[in-house]
Amino acid sequence: MEKQYDIGLIGLAVMGENLVLNMAGKGFAVAVYNRTVSKVDDFVAGRGKGLAIGGAHSVAELVAMLKRPRKVMLMVKAGKPVDDMIGELLPYLEPGDIIIDGGNSYFEDTRRRWRELAVKGIRFIGMGVSGGEEGALKGPSLMPGGDRDAYQEVAPIFTRIAAQVADGPCCAYVGPDGAGHYVKMVHNGIEYGDMQLISEAYYIMKNALGLSADELHRVFAKWNEGDLDSYLIEITRDIFTKYDDATGLPLVEVILDKAGQKGTGKWTSQSALDLGVPTPTITEAVFARCMSAYKDERVAAAKVLTGPDGRYTGDRYEFIQAIHDALYASKICSYAQGFALLKAASAEYQWDLDFGEVALLWRGGCIIRARFLDRIKEAYQRDPQLPNLLIDPFFRSVLDKAQANWRLVVKTCKELGIPTPAFSASLDYYDSYRRAVLPANLIQAQRDYFGAHTYERTDRPGVFHTEWLESK
Amino acid sequence: MEKQYDIGLIGLAVMGENLVLNMAGKGFAVAVYNRTVSKVDDFVAGRGKGLAIGGAHSVAELVAMLKRPRKVMLMVKAGKPVDDMIGELLPYLEPGDIIIDGGNSYFEDTRRRWRELAVKGIRFIGMGVSGGEEGALKGPSLMPGGDRDAYQEVAPIFTRIAAQVADGPCCAYVGPDGAGHYVKMVHNGIEYGDMQLISEAYYIMKNALGLSADELHRVFAKWNEGDLDSYLIEITRDIFTKYDDATGLPLVEVILDKAGQKGTGKWTSQSALDLGVPTPTITEAVFARCMSAYKDERVAAAKVLTGPDGRYTGDRYEFIQAIHDALYASKICSYAQGFALLKAASAEYQWDLDFGEVALLWRGGCIIRARFLDRIKEAYQRDPQLPNLLIDPFFRSVLDKAQANWRLVVKTCKELGIPTPAFSASLDYYDSYRRAVLPANLIQAQRDYFGAHTYERTDRPGVFHTEWLESK
Repeated sequence: MEKQYDIGLIGLAVMGENLVLNMAGKGFAVAVYNRTVSKVDDFVAGRGKGLAIGGAHSVAELVAMLKRPRKVMLMVKAGKPVDDMIGELLPYLEPGDIIIDGGNSYFEDTRRRWRELAVKGIRFIGMGVSGGEEGALKGPSLMPGGDRDAYQEVAPIFTRIAAQVADGPCCAYVGPDGAGHYVKMVHNGIEYGDMQLISEAYYIMKNALGLSADELHRVFAKWNEGDLDSYLIEITRDIFTKYDDATGLPLVEVILDKAGQKGTGKWTSQSALDLGVPTPTITEAVFARCMSAYKDERVAAAKVLTGPDGRYTGDRYEFIQAIHDALYASKICSYAQGFALLKAASAEYQWDLDFGEVALLWRGGCIIRARFLDRIKEAYQRDPQLPNLLIDPFFRSVLDKAQANWRLVVKTCKELGIPTPAFSASLDYYDSYRRAVLPANLIQAQRDYFGAHTYERTDRPGVFHTEWLESK
Repeated sequence: MEKQYDIGLIGLAVMGENLVLNMAGKGFAVAVYNRTVSKVDDFVAGRGKGLAIGGAHSVAELVAMLKRPRKVMLMVKAGKPVDDMIGELLPYLEPGDIIIDGGNSYFEDTRRRWRELAVKGIRFIGMGVSGGEEGALKGPSLMPGGDRDAYQEVAPIFTRIAAQVADGPCCAYVGPDGAGHYVKMVHNGIEYGDMQLISEAYYIMKNALGLSADELHRVFAKWNEGDLDSYLIEITRDIFTKYDDATGLPLVEVILDKAGQKGTGKWTSQSALDLGVPTPTITEAVFARCMSAYKDERVAAAKVLTGPDGRYTGDRYEFIQAIHDALYASKICSYAQGFALLKAASAEYQWDLDFGEVALLWRGGCIIRARFLDRIKEAYQRDPQLPNLLIDPFFRSVLDKAQANWRLVVKTCKELGIPTPAFSASLDYYDSYRRAVLPANLIQAQRDYFGAHTYERTDRPGVFHTEWLESK
C-alpha cells in the first residue's frame, strides 16, 4: 500500500467523502483518514467500494501511503480543529510537502498558518470550496490560495475534479496566503445578498400581488430563462413545486421564517468595515437573517406597531416585470460591492487578484453560479483596473434601463409597508455612487466643531480647522 | 509633595489636560505625567498655573505623589500605548491600587486588561469619556466599567467633574470589565447614526428644495426647539451661520465631502454582526462615510451613471415638516438598534446593564445629548425588560404619527434619485420588525436544498430536512 496514493484527505463528513469520490472517479488514488476511525472503514467498504481509495487508521499511516511530495487535504471544521490536525500531521511531514485546507477557514487564520508553515518548509494552500454536497461530488468551484508552486503540483487533481465551464475549469490559483479563503468568503457574502434579494422579490409578489406557489414557480421559471439565469433562481423555481405531505400546503409556506447563518456572510461585512468598503446590500442581507431570528419579538411587535399592509393596485404583469428589473439591478449592486471589496483586499494584502478570473471561478460549480458572471468577466477583460462594476458600459446600460422599474418597486414597497432592506440599500448605493457631492461636508463640519477633527476644502489643498464658536 | 495627590493622570493631550483642569477646578489635587516630559512642565506652569496640579517627571515619581490606594488615570492613545503604560506602572503599584483607562479602548482589550490586572490585585476601570474637548473641561459624560468597589473609591471625583443634569451627574457605574467601553462604543455608533440622519435631512432640503444656508439655519433652529432638541441639531443650526472669509460662501459649502472616522462606529457594527443584532441605520452611517471617501470614483461615476436629479414640486413647508418627521422616526429606529445591541451584549457578557441608567449617562455632557434621552429613560422605567424601544407606548405612538411623512420622504427621494441610506434602512428596519412573518422561510428552503442545513416548521417543533430533488 505504501507511497502509491496521489493525495490524502482527512475528514470524512459528507463534503470530504464527496470530494474523495470525485477524485477517485477521475482516476486519482486517494488515501483517507478520519478521527473516528470506524468511519474510514465504513466509507472504504461502503460508498468508496471498488475505487482507488485506501483507508488509514492513523495520521502516520496516512502520510506513509502518499507519493512525495505528500499532498494532504483537510476537510475538518474551521477553527481549532484545523490547527490541531496540522499539529498532528507535522511530525510526519518533510519540507516540500503540501497541506491543503479545504474548509471555510477565516482568511486571517489562513494567513497565519501559511506564515507558520512556511518557516517549517511546509507548503500551505488555503482553498475555498463551494457547491455544497452535490458540487463536491460532481464538480465544485475551487478557490486555492497560498504557495503558487505548490498549487502547480496539485493543479492536475483539482482542475480535473472542479466544475467545467466553456472557458475551462472553475479552479485556478487565486493569490498568496489567505487569498483563496478570502475570495470564498466574499463568494458567500454575495450568496447572502443573492438569497436575500430573491426572498424580497418573493415577499413582494406574495404580499403585494398575492401570487400562489404555482404562480411563483412560473415567474421564477421564466426569470431563469433570461438575465437572471442562475442556480439560486433555478432552485427557487423548484422549491415552489414541492408540497408538504402533512398539510398539503406548499412546503415553503410551512417552513419557519428564521434563517440560520454560519459566519462567512458576517465576516464579509466585518472585513468590508475594516477596509472601509461600503457593502450595504450584503450587510443588509446578513442583518435580515439576524432580524428573522427575532421571531418572537416580531410576532409581539406585529400586534402593536402600525403601518400599511396593502395590495398593489396597478397592472400585475407590469409590476412583476418591475420586480424582475429591481432584482437584476440590485444584484448588480451587490456584486459591485463584492468586487470592490476584493479590489480593496487585493491592495491591502498585496494579493494581485485577477477579478475576471475570480468571476470565471464562480461561473460554475458554486452556489452563485450564473450566466451573469460571464458579463463580469467581460467587464474586467475590457478594463482590468475597473474601479467599480457599476461604471462598466454593459452594467451601466442595464442599470439605466432597469432603474425606473427599480425605483417604482422600492417606492411602492415603502408605501405598502413591505420591508425590502436589500433592494433599498442597493438603490441607495447606486444613487450614492453616482453623486459627485454627498452630504459628508456637513459631517466634517460637525466633527470639526465638536472635536477639532479638521477638514479639507473643495477649492484648495490642505487641512483646515475653524473655531466655530467665534463671531457667529 | 509626596502622597498628597487625589489622583494621577498620564497623557497630556488636550482631552487629558482638560480633564485635569476640570478636576483641579472642583478641588481635587492632581498629579500629572506625560511621556514627553517637557509637556508636564509647560502645562503646570501654563494652563495649570495656580491650581493644585503637581508635575511628575517619571512614572515612579507620579505614583509616589499619590494617596493610597493610588488612582491613576490613563489618557493615552488606544491600543498598544495603553498596554505599554500599564506595564510601566505595574512595578510601582501595590494590590488595591486602581488604574482607570479613559481612552477609546476596544472593549475586548478592556476585558483582557481587567482579567490580567485582577490576577495581580490591581483594580481596573475602563471608562468611556464623551463630550470632546469642551466636555472634558466643563463636564463630560462618563461611562465607567470594571471593579465596582474601585468605582466607589473614584466616584467622588468623577461624579463631581461629570456633566450634571436634572436627574444627577452623567456618571454612574455601568457594569463589570469592558461594559463601560462597550457603552461608549455604542454611544459613538449612535452618534454616527445621528450625524448621518441629519446630513440626509440637509441633503434633501438642499437638493430637493434648494434651501439656502440661511434657510437651513432657520429650519434647524426651529427643529432644535422641538422633539429633535439636541446638541447635534444645535451645532448644525450654528454651522449654517458660518461664512468662509476667502470665498464669502457658507463655510459648509466649501468643505470637502469626505468624512473621516476613527473606528468606534465600525466596531459597533462589527459587534452587532457578532452578536446577531441588526443595526442597519448605524451601519449605513458607517458605510456612508466610507462611500464619501471614494470621492474621485464618485466624481467619475457622476459623469456616466444616469438617474433623476429633480426638485420636489409639492408644498415646500409641508415637505420640510415631513423631513422632520422622517428624521425623528429614523432616529428612534437608530436608538432602538443601539439599545437592542446593548441588551444583547449585556446578556452575552453578563453585564446586567441598566438601560435607563445608560440613557441618563447620555443625557448631558456627550455628543448625542438630547432631550430625547429622557423619553428613553422613561421607557425603561416603564419596562426595564423592554425587548425593543419601538414597542414602548410613547415611541410607537410617535412612529404611528410620523410614518406617513416618513414614507413620503423616502419614496420621494427614491423618485428624485437622492440617496438616503440611513432613512431607508430605518424604515425597512421598522417594517421588518413589525412583520410577524418575513421571507426567511424561502432562505431556509434554499439552504436546505443546496446544503442540507435543515429547517424548522411553523406548525410543530423539531428539525426537518427535505430531499428537494425527489419527486418534484
